[in-house]
Amino acid sequence: MRIVLDGMGGDNAPRETVKGAVEAAEVINDEICIVGKRELIEEELKRNNFKGNNIIIVNADEVITMEDSPVKAIRRKPDSSMVVGLNLLKEKRGDVIVSGGNTGALVVGSRMILGRIEGIDRPVLASIYPCLGKPASLLVDAGASSEAKAQNLLEYGLMGSIYMEKVLGRKNPRVGLVNLGVEESKGTSVTKDAYKRLQQASINFVGNVEAREVPNGACEVIVCDGFVGNVILKLTEGMAWSILRLLKNKLMETIKAKVAGLMIKGQLTSMKAEFDYNEYGGAPILGVNGPVIKIHGSSNHDAVKNAIIKSIPYARENVVDIIRKSMLDTEENIEEDEEDNF
Amino acid sequence: MRIVLDGMGGDNAPRETVKGAVEAAEVINDEICIVGKRELIEEELKRNNFKGNNIIIVNADEVITMEDSPVKAIRRKPDSSMVVGLNLLKEKRGDVIVSGGNTGALVVGSRMILGRIEGIDRPVLASIYPCLGKPASLLVDAGASSEAKAQNLLEYGLMGSIYMEKVLGRKNPRVGLVNLGVEESKGTSVTKDAYKRLQQASINFVGNVEAREVPNGACEVIVCDGFVGNVILKLTEGMAWSILRLLKNKLMETIKAKVAGLMIKGQLTSMKAEFDYNEYGGAPILGVNGPVIKIHGSSNHDAVKNAIIKSIPYARENVVDIIRKSMLDTEENIEEDEEDNF
Repeated sequence: MRIVLDGMGGDNAPRETVKGAVEAAEVINDEICIVGKRELIEEELKRNNFKGNNIIIVNADEVITMEDSPVKAIRRKPDSSMVVGLNLLKEKRGDVIVSGGNTGALVVGSRMILGRIEGIDRPVLASIYPCLGKPASLLVDAGASSEAKAQNLLEYGLMGSIYMEKVLGRKNPRVGLVNLGVEESKGTSVTKDAYKRLQQASINFVGNVEAREVPNGACEVIVCDGFVGNVILKLTEGMAWSILRLLKNKLMETIKAKVAGLMIKGQLTSMKAEFDYNEYGGAPILGVNGPVIKIHGSSNHDAVKNAIIKSIPYARENVVDIIRKSMLDTEENIEEDEEDNF
Repeated sequence: MRIVLDGMGGDNAPRETVKGAVEAAEVINDEICIVGKRELIEEELKRNNFKGNNIIIVNADEVITMEDSPVKAIRRKPDSSMVVGLNLLKEKRGDVIVSGGNTGALVVGSRMILGRIEGIDRPVLASIYPCLGKPASLLVDAGASSEAKAQNLLEYGLMGSIYMEKVLGRKNPRVGLVNLGVEESKGTSVTKDAYKRLQQASINFVGNVEAREVPNGACEVIVCDGFVGNVILKLTEGMAWSILRLLKNKLMETIKAKVAGLMIKGQLTSMKAEFDYNEYGGAPILGVNGPVIKIHGSSNHDAVKNAIIKSIPYARENVVDIIRKSMLDTEENIEEDEEDNF
């Protein structure tokens, strides 16, 4: 297996990307291919005292920045670490790519260079969603496209379910559609149509889920359009910090409260840790012809290391082929259904 | 001033509605008109030992239930407490109405019986949004219509701003549009168009607001479509309970943590109280020809009492007239702008 790492993607690249790669290389047998400015990467490998033989470098002189417009960047920077990395995947010289670079560019680049999986209308960015005191869920769409058709929502459910099962090891994951209420009749014309399609698919569809139940892990695959997905992810983060800040202020109110605060320091730290989902190893772009993992632009070496290690099952389990096959099955089902109507 | 109370609306009506009315009647000089089954209401007034003279009863033999379909209920139950109450407003025999009944029916009934304010395309349900450690914001649309046009979002911002200023006493309230990012170019074609319209309106528009900043009080009037509004309200509630439950579990982990938990009992109770927004007195339906206040179906007498008291400024401040005038001004502005283009 060869894991491609966008060495220049992210706020702290290549320092943190290379350090993370070195740490990952020590615990895996697979090869890591860092793409980026050769001199800078060699310097970082030296600084980290790397002595192994499972890291190689592929040179790329350009860098796509966070400010670059996605489509233009992919077209006009053919020698950027992201584009070179995606081409390695396309040419089967790499099995999976991990990047902390410009999210829009990575989504667009994956679609333009790797292409969509046959039968998939729209590739999508998924995101790990932390559920308090429970295993994390997967949210699809995490903000790749602000609007969605019913067919897109069906695809999100199918692909999310496959990813959860094959890569994160959840058997028969519960797929839910974010909606105004649990009744089938609730929502917009799009969600009503999506409900019917998801119900007919070969997945464990648990129906509509209200936003209230999302943090509670009511479904393991959270299906919604990118606008709603963005609101869910950001509001969850905002609420977590608002409540923890409020708690912190309350614990400063009196001397007694301060003492109590010290007594539960360990518990408070472990509460904060519930929101840290680096251990899950980044967010997959689903629906393109190759496994692509997006990590935060602010990822440190730990997050990079984790993402590299966790990317292996994404490549190994042939998720792309399984999605392709699943889409063909779904199309056959729909055709059969349509025939039944005559 | 005469405040109309839907005596039969809500899960605990008429017990809690009448008790709340009696408690309110003791502290205000205005008249409360309870609409509903006369015998039941008289019985409750007796049970509460009411001796005052500022409660009157208007009989209504039917009740709209939570299960009733909104449009059908308004049309087919002309003698329901809700329809009779709304008609009192229409006939100027009441100045404001408070109801804990079927939300959909109240929105539809307000529109059908009172009519839309001239210039308003779509009346809307607003909701108080609790900001932790800060004064609450107002969210519009709280779920009346799942989709919205740019013009609707403009109306939500204008009406929300007027309500915040005139009824809740906030000077020049900050109005924000929920969006994927703060840049003007972010979002869907609808939010981009709404941004421009809100920017031209005579309100304190602070631009796009990310969901992360909403619990933090980044804007005092939160503008979004009803689907997103529903997600924001319910996710906020779900996150609050999830985190408080997690904290509770953490405080049971060890004996030391249990002791600390007892030491901060007061602080924990006051944290929970941050989520109680009954003190703000219910949610207004904005854009109809009369002040209508929706309270939770599960409201107890305290919530009813509060809503009655807080409904007085809504009626007194002529919010309906101010909205009408503001819409006329906006239309004049738009016409002038269009003329400028030639």
